[in-house]
Amino acid sequence: MQLSKKALGISPSLTLGISAMASEMKKRGEDVISFGIGEPDFDTPDYIKRAAVLAIQEGRTKYTPVAGIPELKKAICDRYFEKYGLKYDPSQVVVSNGAKQALFNIFQSILNPGDEVILLAPYWLTYPEQVRMADGVPVFVQSREEDGFQADPAAIEAAVTKKTRAILLNSPSNPGGNVYGKKVLEQIARIARENDLYIISDEIYDELVYDVKTISPATLSQDAKARTIIVNGVSKTFAMTGWRIGYAISDPALAKVMASYQSHSTSNACSISQYAALAAFQGLKEDLRCMVCVFAARAKLLYELINEIPGLSCQMPKGAFYVFANIRPVLGKKYNGQTITDSVKFCELLLKEKLVAAVPGIAFGTEGYVRISYATSEMNIQRGLARIGEFFKNIV
Amino acid sequence: MQLSKKALGISPSLTLGISAMASEMKKRGEDVISFGIGEPDFDTPDYIKRAAVLAIQEGRTKYTPVAGIPELKKAICDRYFEKYGLKYDPSQVVVSNGAKQALFNIFQSILNPGDEVILLAPYWLTYPEQVRMADGVPVFVQSREEDGFQADPAAIEAAVTKKTRAILLNSPSNPGGNVYGKKVLEQIARIARENDLYIISDEIYDELVYDVKTISPATLSQDAKARTIIVNGVSKTFAMTGWRIGYAISDPALAKVMASYQSHSTSNACSISQYAALAAFQGLKEDLRCMVCVFAARAKLLYELINEIPGLSCQMPKGAFYVFANIRPVLGKKYNGQTITDSVKFCELLLKEKLVAAVPGIAFGTEGYVRISYATSEMNIQRGLARIGEFFKNIV
Repeated sequence: MQLSKKALGISPSLTLGISAMASEMKKRGEDVISFGIGEPDFDTPDYIKRAAVLAIQEGRTKYTPVAGIPELKKAICDRYFEKYGLKYDPSQVVVSNGAKQALFNIFQSILNPGDEVILLAPYWLTYPEQVRMADGVPVFVQSREEDGFQADPAAIEAAVTKKTRAILLNSPSNPGGNVYGKKVLEQIARIARENDLYIISDEIYDELVYDVKTISPATLSQDAKARTIIVNGVSKTFAMTGWRIGYAISDPALAKVMASYQSHSTSNACSISQYAALAAFQGLKEDLRCMVCVFAARAKLLYELINEIPGLSCQMPKGAFYVFANIRPVLGKKYNGQTITDSVKFCELLLKEKLVAAVPGIAFGTEGYVRISYATSEMNIQRGLARIGEFFKNIV
Repeated sequence: MQLSKKALGISPSLTLGISAMASEMKKRGEDVISFGIGEPDFDTPDYIKRAAVLAIQEGRTKYTPVAGIPELKKAICDRYFEKYGLKYDPSQVVVSNGAKQALFNIFQSILNPGDEVILLAPYWLTYPEQVRMADGVPVFVQSREEDGFQADPAAIEAAVTKKTRAILLNSPSNPGGNVYGKKVLEQIARIARENDLYIISDEIYDELVYDVKTISPATLSQDAKARTIIVNGVSKTFAMTGWRIGYAISDPALAKVMASYQSHSTSNACSISQYAALAAFQGLKEDLRCMVCVFAARAKLLYELINEIPGLSCQMPKGAFYVFANIRPVLGKKYNGQTITDSVKFCELLLKEKLVAAVPGIAFGTEGYVRISYATSEMNIQRGLARIGEFFKNIV
């Protein structure tokens, strides 16, 4: 019996091999320090947990409307009005099983076979897979560390063809930790307008920023608002990864198609999680502010420790909870007789020799870097970076 | 900006118009009795709720493995061994956001463009949409009320072509309420073997049976087991629709592809719901037995009341919580000057004139019937059927 060629063609995540190896080592009792983490190490705040418990006790355990309970959709609209001054109607919101599904719904709903989506590398590794799963073609535009990992609008413009349907923005970004500035965003909005493109704006890290403000491209103009599809969720902001609540906000016609697609693929997201997410939006922002302060302190610590290591460097991240560290000076060199050919080999050696897990840059479409997450304690950051320092000392 | 032709082509559920109308009427304060319900009207049992609260309190609110927590996958294997004597390894299980996603993953993972899947009408309306969403072609085989809505193996065999990849079985069935017998299943297994087809066995109602035993096609032979993909979930059995936990069990290679597909489309199902489902499997079966008794009593009541109405009839359901009632005697006749042209018109008139909501048979691919759910109180069944009786009296 044959299987789907498309499904078989989905790349097993490049990070998978290394994280599987790390798990194996941990199981054997080895003291692995993981910087591969993509979720806050905080627990979901208590006020959110209490709301979820109440929802369970009150029997809110039934099917909900496919696109989400009305109260949650309204809370999402209120949030975008309060934070960005953007007015949306709840009919423009589709709540999904995580922001991942929100993105999946978007590609399935806007792409026809062969349509192109411009992705700005380094990018989150799921983007190109999702574009291909919708029979689309991912087109990559590399950004450079020297530009703070902000893509050059001229390069984006050069990548536009007649088949281009959308540009995907992720700000603050995973793995770059960069936040797009207004000037670049205005250029991207112009390119979108002139070529009649959607701007897919993945804003999942928009509360996790340090000393800068995030700008949603939807705020730039009425035209930009009309062609921006916002993607967000509660996973990163409220330490709610396991609850699986994300959402998309778009023009009503697209929202309707996305809801229709979801109605036959998965139906509504977990009802209890929806009530928990509602509480998250309505609750005090204290926990969130504390979390941002902790992340900011860790970012600074990690930045300093990395740049003290000869051969390793990174920029100060502006948002999210990753640094994208430059390992180019040691590519081609040797550790313990083995050549560090690329970021995958680097990560394999680092894990085997020093019990430190990081994610190779090539997983995000950019070779010569590794992603180091600081969604882990300052203690782990100190210990892990000491080990990485030892690793670099022995590279010849 | 254009949208995906495929996504635009997804049929808005035929039931949607009528249920939207029913909701509107309820909002206006009208006393609508709904027989359109597809979920148990019981609350999730307390022992399951307690486990979910504990999971929240213990901070089990993080990402889980994409295909589900190991404990739940093991509990699913144990359940299939205890109930059917079937041995599976947890690596063959993929836990999803409801059985709907389990089915969606299957079609996306086994179909290439143009591949055919045989669906036995009347069928659950999501099946053909999901086949089309995977670029497949649904091929329909009608079953007859006279055969207890069991499809004729000869008709299934005649529908097989070189493009056929799978036969989908749903036993106990929605909306027919039938349970497939061993002889028919053996014929279907033979057809699958001779033509190298998957048997997709949607067993979501397998605990809700009355005076009969369900047979999983996987129990018929080693060959049948190898080519059967089991679909099930906790929604119907444990009154857990809102929690969204379903699963597929298949050969390990297919399970791997499905997990890979899910890893980039939605990732894991809600972590809290997974722990709740684990408790459901481990807990006492008392609540379940009570629920089955209540459903059995309602089925009998509904069956009797329906067959007392001249012009309306149904078979005694063997499982699930629906009857598929025959309205053919009144098609072409008139109510209040309006011709009852088909099941949609019948349901519209019944709702407008008598405030009773039911689902037209054509939504399940079979004209001349309506689906009446008994996932509602005996009181509602009594009141609703009295109204339906009045409705039939005035048909001329």
